[in-house]
Amino acid sequence: MKSKSRKVAIVGAGMVGSSCAYSMVNQAICDEIMMIDRTYDRAMAQALDLSHCMDFTSTRTKVYAGTHSDCAGMDVVILTAGANPKAGQTRLDVLEASAVITREIITNIMAGGFDGIFVVAANPVDIVTYMVWKISGLPRHRIIGTGTSIDSSRLKTLLSDVFSIDPRSVNGYALGEHGESQFVAWSHVTIGGKPILQIMDQHRERFQHLDLEDISRKTKDAGWEIFTKKGSTHFGIGSALAYITRSILNDEHKIIAVSAILDGEYGQSGVCTGVPAIIGNTGIQELLELNLNTGEAEKFNTSCSIVRSGIESLHLEDSI
Amino acid sequence: MKSKSRKVAIVGAGMVGSSCAYSMVNQAICDEIMMIDRTYDRAMAQALDLSHCMDFTSTRTKVYAGTHSDCAGMDVVILTAGANPKAGQTRLDVLEASAVITREIITNIMAGGFDGIFVVAANPVDIVTYMVWKISGLPRHRIIGTGTSIDSSRLKTLLSDVFSIDPRSVNGYALGEHGESQFVAWSHVTIGGKPILQIMDQHRERFQHLDLEDISRKTKDAGWEIFTKKGSTHFGIGSALAYITRSILNDEHKIIAVSAILDGEYGQSGVCTGVPAIIGNTGIQELLELNLNTGEAEKFNTSCSIVRSGIESLHLEDSI
Amino acid sequence: MKSKSRKVAIVGAGMVGSSCAYSMVNQAICDEIMMIDRTYDRAMAQALDLSHCMDFTSTRTKVYAGTHSDCAGMDVVILTAGANPKAGQTRLDVLEASAVITREIITNIMAGGFDGIFVVAANPVDIVTYMVWKISGLPRHRIIGTGTSIDSSRLKTLLSDVFSIDPRSVNGYALGEHGESQFVAWSHVTIGGKPILQIMDQHRERFQHLDLEDISRKTKDAGWEIFTKKGSTHFGIGSALAYITRSILNDEHKIIAVSAILDGEYGQSGVCTGVPAIIGNTGIQELLELNLNTGEAEKFNTSCSIVRSGIESLHLEDSI
Amino acid sequence: MKSKSRKVAIVGAGMVGSSCAYSMVNQAICDEIMMIDRTYDRAMAQALDLSHCMDFTSTRTKVYAGTHSDCAGMDVVILTAGANPKAGQTRLDVLEASAVITREIITNIMAGGFDGIFVVAANPVDIVTYMVWKISGLPRHRIIGTGTSIDSSRLKTLLSDVFSIDPRSVNGYALGEHGESQFVAWSHVTIGGKPILQIMDQHRERFQHLDLEDISRKTKDAGWEIFTKKGSTHFGIGSALAYITRSILNDEHKIIAVSAILDGEYGQSGVCTGVPAIIGNTGIQELLELNLNTGEAEKFNTSCSIVRSGIESLHLEDSI
Repeated sequence: MKSKSRKVAIVGAGMVGSSCAYSMVNQAICDEIMMIDRTYDRAMAQALDLSHCMDFTSTRTKVYAGTHSDCAGMDVVILTAGANPKAGQTRLDVLEASAVITREIITNIMAGGFDGIFVVAANPVDIVTYMVWKISGLPRHRIIGTGTSIDSSRLKTLLSDVFSIDPRSVNGYALGEHGESQFVAWSHVTIGGKPILQIMDQHRERFQHLDLEDISRKTKDAGWEIFTKKGSTHFGIGSALAYITRSILNDEHKIIAVSAILDGEYGQSGVCTGVPAIIGNTGIQELLELNLNTGEAEKFNTSCSIVRSGIESLHLEDSI
Repeated sequence: MKSKSRKVAIVGAGMVGSSCAYSMVNQAICDEIMMIDRTYDRAMAQALDLSHCMDFTSTRTKVYAGTHSDCAGMDVVILTAGANPKAGQTRLDVLEASAVITREIITNIMAGGFDGIFVVAANPVDIVTYMVWKISGLPRHRIIGTGTSIDSSRLKTLLSDVFSIDPRSVNGYALGEHGESQFVAWSHVTIGGKPILQIMDQHRERFQHLDLEDISRKTKDAGWEIFTKKGSTHFGIGSALAYITRSILNDEHKIIAVSAILDGEYGQSGVCTGVPAIIGNTGIQELLELNLNTGEAEKFNTSCSIVRSGIESLHLEDSI
Repeated sequence: MKSKSRKVAIVGAGMVGSSCAYSMVNQAICDEIMMIDRTYDRAMAQALDLSHCMDFTSTRTKVYAGTHSDCAGMDVVILTAGANPKAGQTRLDVLEASAVITREIITNIMAGGFDGIFVVAANPVDIVTYMVWKISGLPRHRIIGTGTSIDSSRLKTLLSDVFSIDPRSVNGYALGEHGESQFVAWSHVTIGGKPILQIMDQHRERFQHLDLEDISRKTKDAGWEIFTKKGSTHFGIGSALAYITRSILNDEHKIIAVSAILDGEYGQSGVCTGVPAIIGNTGIQELLELNLNTGEAEKFNTSCSIVRSGIESLHLEDSI
Repeated sequence: MKSKSRKVAIVGAGMVGSSCAYSMVNQAICDEIMMIDRTYDRAMAQALDLSHCMDFTSTRTKVYAGTHSDCAGMDVVILTAGANPKAGQTRLDVLEASAVITREIITNIMAGGFDGIFVVAANPVDIVTYMVWKISGLPRHRIIGTGTSIDSSRLKTLLSDVFSIDPRSVNGYALGEHGESQFVAWSHVTIGGKPILQIMDQHRERFQHLDLEDISRKTKDAGWEIFTKKGSTHFGIGSALAYITRSILNDEHKIIAVSAILDGEYGQSGVCTGVPAIIGNTGIQELLELNLNTGEAEKFNTSCSIVRSGIESLHLEDSI
């Protein structure tokens, strides 16, 4: 058979990039992983460490180090490299530093002839995803940010605990910016297909201590809680990256809340933010437009405005 | 460590029972599988054939033959043995023959000291599940029929094709009798958390050829179509059994539409039928009561009446 | 990304073919499975039944029915269709009937433009594999028979029981014809890398009841024992097919005892028989030549003679 | 069913401990993971981060933080906490610091009533494993060090590359100290069951550039190479821990080169070093004694002497 090796490059061999690679090795998601890092030795060391897992798994993923210009034959390039937030900083604070890094990386990758799909985790993810689109010149459906995929997973984990239900029997999304202005679309959260608002209404006594505002807050703050306590969050986001990549490589058409460049959907354009999308082997096959209620729609618009401000501050159009 | 081997007995080593075992071996769902059959040689042959898969999988499930009285230490007993429907027969036609078989099997298993969970696939499954409850004397949450789990899976497969979506991003149930009177609860079918009725309403042109009645009919008739063409349906139902069993053994708390003995839920009692239930290591942890609309509620009640008639025709109370 | 869907056709939708498909669905080995059968309705029914497993697995394998001429784009075609042995018959008895079926199928598949790898399970498998080579005109490394892969698995299962060891920590092969003349190459059987003959020599008392001849016989006869008791063997061989196919599709380079066309290896040519081979995405990458001891080499040559007689009786050269 | 939850505690929530947890979550190896760390907040943060992977996997492993005294109900306690080597140090250099830490941790865990199996990865692993045995007072088969499991995996990865073979078709061990005095037992390295020494002898030209001494050195030095380049090795060893733990929890009886306390095996006693062992649910079921050749046996004895010196320097007998 002609080669159908599924190849993924991971740019940034730090905690997030290497955790993502480890998750993909453990789950046998692809055939080859190329680790890329500003410090080539770090990429090599991660590849070597990861290659020693083979005997303990059922997979034979080849893991090796490479450079931006080696990305030509890759199916997916995962971007984790960026400027890391420091304690006290918001995700937007690191914007400028990330912009410089991103421009250099994407320019090099495209110059090498890359023609696949970008999956972006570098923060501030909504803005960086937008930048990758502008700089790469690829069609918007081939640029996917992790967006609120990880926040939605945190939401489901929290609800899974509260209701003592398998997280895969819970559906729901955090939407908007992967940042302070995100919100939970409670109107579309379901437990086994039943709206959570109905469940709470019908069992007031049983769930009287369940505070949705509190769940929303914990969903939003979980990342910072982890970051504060251990200096980095990488396992959850590494798994989110692996999950999105698997849906691309296997053409699974899973619906995942990712950061997508909007072009009229939800009444928004020229902005990139977390919305449910169908993910397959062409990237974002289609966006799912939920019928948000008035309060949710307002929150969504506010969140888009915040991301848009960040994008505009970069004056991307001028420089390209 | 003390032994935590997870043990499953499968009563009936025919197509359904052996397919279920094969699926469990391939997925490494349990540590031991005991095959039981009226014809001991058949159970032995299935166990031997299944044991030769070990080298090709990553599991070390022990598969062996046993008898009803060996079920004492089992965690789960799967009942697939019953009277098979013949062409032209309805599932209810085979009721009488199944009743005799079921009584003998369950009596022997309980006499051997079994104290676990029954998962029932023998048809007519709603009635046989009820019988197993009455004959075994176990609490109702420890008797689980496959019910409309397989029909719900067929529904999701159909919708997954129509919408080109991963089936795990579709939620929905066929409810009621695993038979002619079942129905799809369209009010609770969601695609990525968005109600299908809303999607169709907002995209009339795109989905003008989508006929929900047709989907309902195909959902209901899929089993018969397979049965007519190859004489048995076993892969789908085998996987449903493996899935339910996994949710029990791993205490996953997945929500699955199974045949459950109702005691006031959905306004019904003394009957057993397909409803969504949380499945964990005590069996049915809780039923999920959907807010059916009027038409759906009527269909549900009709379906319950049909199952109840079947149950009553057996005069179970008299004979126990 | 460009499509890298991994596609497998299964010719023969009976017990072996459908069990193989079920195993591949459960293990998510490929993206598409096309079922092909003389009776199109049977292929359709198997595909429909298998498609209902999706919701219960973590895969989204598309399963559908097709015809021989649809095989053009397939990566692997698995051949299970043939004449079934009847009680009392040897595998060679069904040779003539199989030859007619095989010629028709392979001719049609090649006419449709197939350019992938054949994996053959139809019996007598060594001879049918040779026929497929001659009829297809493909290079010999792209024709792989299941050969003694299943016998080797049976051997490892037996030894795994005797020594209470994970079968993956046992290595060993049944070699030669997948039939009466096969033999176990005891000189190369190892337990955790230690030769079994050394282990028995050093622990005579402990293993005094271990009779290697008996193990050899059970290895060879296991298929017939199953066949006699339930009329077919399909789970073990279905798993062997899935395992070989996975090693091809993922380019795993696993070493598996398969039926390979010999061209000088082991001193034999113009014959096809069970030997260890490295299996990757071009088919048989290379054969592993074991240093058989004198007794083993004699058995191997005898076995080759038997297969060669079968091949010659078909007068393949004349008719092509 | 009665609870058969498989519970693992990981002591040390740093890179190795958390990587091991991540691997176990990705592979669904157990039902509960308790993270324990000197800094409770770090354990909590790791547990929280890991819990956010649930939605992206097919498992529902509960991950939470705990303390040494919570280990009573655990099946396995994995010990990764210790003193880390600094650049230029050998593994033995960190011995004294590790001894203090280990004594405190094990004493607390045993005081809490732990009665399961210890799996030890803290370095110098052979000596720490011996210490855990002495301090815990548990039988020796319930103390398992990772030993040369990771070195053996590195060996197989290297050979897998050289021969272009799936690592699971390669068998071989690094034996002795997980440190400078380890060695590869080339007499027992096999490729598909064929001794590598035979292969090289028969194909001298083809493998003339293959330098076994070089492979041995790379096997031994791989850890330091990774450590030098990225400051820690954690993925390979995390996977080794997950693999050993899986073989315990599932009673798989895999043969793995682990650090075992010897009592006459290989002519050694009162020392702990890397040898092949059968790993099941009682811990080390049995050691596999290879027939080392004279040169290998000498290396083994030297390695044991080095470990013994380290053990004796701790004066464990005096202080207990």
